[in-house]
Amino acid sequence: MNRILTVDLAEHLGEEVTLQGWLDQLRRLRGLGFLILRDRSGTAQAVLREPEEIERLAELHHESVLEVRGRVAPRGDGRPGAELHDPQVEVLAASQAPPPFDLFRPTLDLPLPTLLDYAPLALRHPRRKAVFEISAAAVEGFRASLRRLGFVEIQTPKLVSSATEGGANVFPVGYFDRTAYLAQSPQFYKQIMVGVFERVFEVGPVFRAEPHDTPRHLNEYVSLDAEVGFIRDHRDVMDILRSVLDGMLRSVQDSAGDAVALLGADLPTLPDRLPHLHFKDAQDLLQASRPEGGEEHDLRPADELWLGQWAKEETGSDFLFIEGYPAVSRPFYTHPDPEWPGHTRGFDLLFRGVELVTGGQRLHLYGDYLKALASRDIDPSPFASYLQAFRYGMPPHGGFAIGLERFVARLLGIQNLRETTLFPRDLTRLEP
Amino acid sequence: MNRILTVDLAEHLGEEVTLQGWLDQLRRLRGLGFLILRDRSGTAQAVLREPEEIERLAELHHESVLEVRGRVAPRGDGRPGAELHDPQVEVLAASQAPPPFDLFRPTLDLPLPTLLDYAPLALRHPRRKAVFEISAAAVEGFRASLRRLGFVEIQTPKLVSSATEGGANVFPVGYFDRTAYLAQSPQFYKQIMVGVFERVFEVGPVFRAEPHDTPRHLNEYVSLDAEVGFIRDHRDVMDILRSVLDGMLRSVQDSAGDAVALLGADLPTLPDRLPHLHFKDAQDLLQASRPEGGEEHDLRPADELWLGQWAKEETGSDFLFIEGYPAVSRPFYTHPDPEWPGHTRGFDLLFRGVELVTGGQRLHLYGDYLKALASRDIDPSPFASYLQAFRYGMPPHGGFAIGLERFVARLLGIQNLRETTLFPRDLTRLEP
Repeated sequence: MNRILTVDLAEHLGEEVTLQGWLDQLRRLRGLGFLILRDRSGTAQAVLREPEEIERLAELHHESVLEVRGRVAPRGDGRPGAELHDPQVEVLAASQAPPPFDLFRPTLDLPLPTLLDYAPLALRHPRRKAVFEISAAAVEGFRASLRRLGFVEIQTPKLVSSATEGGANVFPVGYFDRTAYLAQSPQFYKQIMVGVFERVFEVGPVFRAEPHDTPRHLNEYVSLDAEVGFIRDHRDVMDILRSVLDGMLRSVQDSAGDAVALLGADLPTLPDRLPHLHFKDAQDLLQASRPEGGEEHDLRPADELWLGQWAKEETGSDFLFIEGYPAVSRPFYTHPDPEWPGHTRGFDLLFRGVELVTGGQRLHLYGDYLKALASRDIDPSPFASYLQAFRYGMPPHGGFAIGLERFVARLLGIQNLRETTLFPRDLTRLEP
Repeated sequence: MNRILTVDLAEHLGEEVTLQGWLDQLRRLRGLGFLILRDRSGTAQAVLREPEEIERLAELHHESVLEVRGRVAPRGDGRPGAELHDPQVEVLAASQAPPPFDLFRPTLDLPLPTLLDYAPLALRHPRRKAVFEISAAAVEGFRASLRRLGFVEIQTPKLVSSATEGGANVFPVGYFDRTAYLAQSPQFYKQIMVGVFERVFEVGPVFRAEPHDTPRHLNEYVSLDAEVGFIRDHRDVMDILRSVLDGMLRSVQDSAGDAVALLGADLPTLPDRLPHLHFKDAQDLLQASRPEGGEEHDLRPADELWLGQWAKEETGSDFLFIEGYPAVSRPFYTHPDPEWPGHTRGFDLLFRGVELVTGGQRLHLYGDYLKALASRDIDPSPFASYLQAFRYGMPPHGGFAIGLERFVARLLGIQNLRETTLFPRDLTRLEP
């Protein structure tokens, strides 16, 4: 007999069916046994009447995997839905021990290290699952939005020959008789590929050897990258980003609506036009609010939080673009802003007061690259194959990168990125 | 004036439009100049009449990036389609040198090292682009098929704490004050996640430190992984795999049909039921065909080729499943075949005589894992978090992994995987 899912039980009233799943709980009440079975779609209960069978099953540890055959009947307690009567229960895999925490309770209140050490088990909890259903829906929304705009998906190498992009914060890899490095981003490759497809995106892991132990940092995370050619300036990139965020939020609502409801998440509404502030204006606002501050080249977390609140109050938006970041706080490939010397066409997007996206227009002229490297005293030779793309003609272009775990965390009001990563990697954690 | 794409030119007859793209070629004929502009959608020509303007543009190197404004007219040579008259040409980015090969010719006949060293430029050729349009369509077909079957996409770490899965062929990573390793596959994580979502898939890089310098091996490639719980045996996995391949082939035809046509690729038809042979029967066939061979534990490339031809002749299928691989040639987590001692429920799928997919049913009982590790003299302690999933109840499950670059290579009749990888990594190559 083919298995059905618990969510479909009520469609089979009066039939004999087979369910398969995990023993979530066995409740005993007035001589009856109520076996709660959990599968990927939810839970269902089977009502046991024979005392010996109840005794046999009561000896099983929670999380044992069962096959339950029985007749579908309306629920006996008058609530809507169906339950299984006269069940025959077969044990497919017995749990070897009682789980160290109860997966059947509405919430898992565990210290973070326990939650992470027991990830293979803890992720089975509906609230933990929901986070990653939302994550999957967000990624698919990212891709679908970009495909609709003519972007092509690419896969670029994570092993690179030199620590070109960001200096020290790079992991070395023993690569046969030499040293390779883990890519900190697909930045150079996605730019090169603008010369091929004009519009490209990539979803993949990036690696940062930053020795920070904070809730905001991970040493490996998933980056949602896009890059687009033939733009006028960074504002074109910002428009595409808005459309992508819209697609991500719609996908989360459409494909993971139950997960959103379970977590009580408050999805943001996206204004047709996201508010934006020039970095200099943001500094002016911040200085008015905190007289002690001097001129700054970047925004501190507290500044971002203040600006996020300001945007919410002034415009009603959960999102705020900061454009025109100073050149000193941006990488060499950032396009300068001709109207504001010392500033660039680089932007950040704050989401509820935290940087969610970094992007901007890039340099596209070969000569500008040589000058930018020289002005920063960077040896151009490790950049030879990157520069090859610019030597042979590249259009004005720009792009952005969204941290997937950070997006999901902000969406769900989760403070620590370790809770929006299946198996996080940090200074001390390489397990599970 | 907003840019239009060259493919849409004929829809704008009589209008003034703007095109943007790369200078593919400038032909001169009877005092006229024919400027061929290439953008992401194809090419279009602009007809130049003024000698000074023709002279000015003739000094540009190919691949310079141009904006061309002009009036859309029917083609002057009587062929269908449109061209641009009275064009005004602005140089957005001048190519700094003549490209070392002609991108406008129908084919790029370059030695492989040149093709790879000049990847940023060579990938602009329509035939090179087509390979990766097909690749992108195949990946999307993989995902869409699995989503339709209720699979959830996951993202698992590429940095792992020990070289658990495959012994020596693993890259070490300097991870702060310790050594981490690059994941050879998401095998353990996708199995763990069967305990959470029952059905999962992942698309991501895998890393193999194999010192092989062959057209069939890469040290980093993209693995399309799926894993599914509550199966009866490996045949359920094979059925899902067939459905996924069907989705991939349809997606390639639907989303990259032009690329398929350009390359003259012969897409395979997928029988409703793919033929399968038990490993022992395959050996019997092979021994009848090559009397010198003795008992073998695995298939050699020549064997696979022979079996592929056999399947094509006997069944008309480009695909052939070999099931029941000997336990000695499969990893410890492979489920034994109770009917054939020494054999497993592991399978390979041959596509046109080359292994394309490896899969099978896995062990699911905690005790079986402990026995399997002990019988191979493997210390179980590095497997603690993997075994945690089995300790707390896991359903019968199995899965498979498809090498993306290999799939595309076989589909297009390309011999060397380096030609189906944007920026391949091998023993000697970490650039571009």
